[in-house]
Amino acid sequence: MKIRVYYEDTDVGGVVYHSNYLNFCERARSEAFFEKGMSPVMQNGHFVVKDIQASYIASAKLGEILYVKTALMELKRVSFKLRQEVYRDEEKLFEMDITLAFVDFEGKIKKLEPQNLEILNLLFT
Amino acid sequence: MKIRVYYEDTDVGGVVYHSNYLNFCERARSEAFFEKGMSPVMQNGHFVVKDIQASYIASAKLGEILYVKTALMELKRVSFKLRQEVYRDEEKLFEMDITLAFVDFEGKIKKLEPQNLEILNLLFT
Amino acid sequence: MKIRVYYEDTDVGGVVYHSNYLNFCERARSEAFFEKGMSPVMQNGHFVVKDIQASYIASAKLGEILYVKTALMELKRVSFKLRQEVYRDEEKLFEMDITLAFVDFEGKIKKLEPQNLEILNLLFT
Amino acid sequence: MKIRVYYEDTDVGGVVYHSNYLNFCERARSEAFFEKGMSPVMQNGHFVVKDIQASYIASAKLGEILYVKTALMELKRVSFKLRQEVYRDEEKLFEMDITLAFVDFEGKIKKLEPQNLEILNLLFT
Repeated sequence: MKIRVYYEDTDVGGVVYHSNYLNFCERARSEAFFEKGMSPVMQNGHFVVKDIQASYIASAKLGEILYVKTALMELKRVSFKLRQEVYRDEEKLFEMDITLAFVDFEGKIKKLEPQNLEILNLLFT
Repeated sequence: MKIRVYYEDTDVGGVVYHSNYLNFCERARSEAFFEKGMSPVMQNGHFVVKDIQASYIASAKLGEILYVKTALMELKRVSFKLRQEVYRDEEKLFEMDITLAFVDFEGKIKKLEPQNLEILNLLFT
Repeated sequence: MKIRVYYEDTDVGGVVYHSNYLNFCERARSEAFFEKGMSPVMQNGHFVVKDIQASYIASAKLGEILYVKTALMELKRVSFKLRQEVYRDEEKLFEMDITLAFVDFEGKIKKLEPQNLEILNLLFT
Repeated sequence: MKIRVYYEDTDVGGVVYHSNYLNFCERARSEAFFEKGMSPVMQNGHFVVKDIQASYIASAKLGEILYVKTALMELKRVSFKLRQEVYRDEEKLFEMDITLAFVDFEGKIKKLEPQNLEILNLLFT
């Protein structure tokens, strides 16, 4: 997943605004679904973020091209953990462990069903 | 409607990113509803933007306090026009004429009903 | 210029938030520079938006792929006008005439120099 | 620090987009400076995010009013840690431990000087 840094991603400090790295990672997660002709919004619900542990290592600037790598770290009954890293060439700028859960359209957490597990395994490994 | 400029509103140019003035104006439109205990999302639909004419006069910077003024310019059968201006003290930074329509939840444009007209007159004059 | 609609681009109405079409168009303008190995931030200044006339025709949704077309409409001494259109396949969703000026790093409007005019002609025609 | 949820903060899931809680917390940090007539951008540098640990507990919706509480947890030689919580009335929606460092305008991490330590103690305790 390749991402260009545009004006809207930067702030007055001259670099990418800190929360936008989370957006870049979310684009990569969604793109994994779109690429397979699927949507992260499923018939019976969608994914929500439960927990984030993020480290900011270096800053990205306007016009740079970044890459997001995503790996499945853990699959549990009601949640799963991904490691997502943002690179500029070989240099890691940002790293995040993110735990997501699957909720129905009332926002209730649901057990990950076999079909979800299959999809997650397919998309992120 | 008073708005503080935060980091997220700025870009690498050191000033507020151009499309954020539209966001500031949208906040002011929504806030007019919220202040009266109403929501811009109504039982039978919500408002969508049809047309914008905007002039950028001067730039706002981090930490500045801006004010949005909103006036109803025109009420038609299926749309209405507002003039929204963004000020820093006495200085006008941005001016926009925006035409909005009311659509149902399938996205179909609907005639503005007497109750909508009353609300718009109440909120923006 | 191809753009995917991600979660961050949408709002609770289920479609792309209105001001994000301006962001999509800005990405296309900047990308025109980046593709040629240039930057929209030049040695002696950068571009600012002076005026926008925009029409919203139809709405884009999560996961859709949009295309931005950009054409140079007018070149003046201190400003130039572009027409930018956002398409989903053959369907036009959004159209904007945008006037930009070139300012130095103190924010003063500068005459477009021959080198700027050449670049604009190169990028947008 | 009181924050209203506007359209721009929500996504197609109907709730606040996950990275916007980081923005809300950043607004609260900056507002602490602005309220005292100071700026988070100082003469010799500014603050950058080094590390975030965040938990998402419940979701905020359009029009709701949120409150951000900020407390200084730790002051070190080159960084400090804040705990920031986002509430809707008495209900905690989001909690984050964020570590920030002070960098000069070349992006080099600098030791927190006595004046910075005083300011941080003043603002966040």
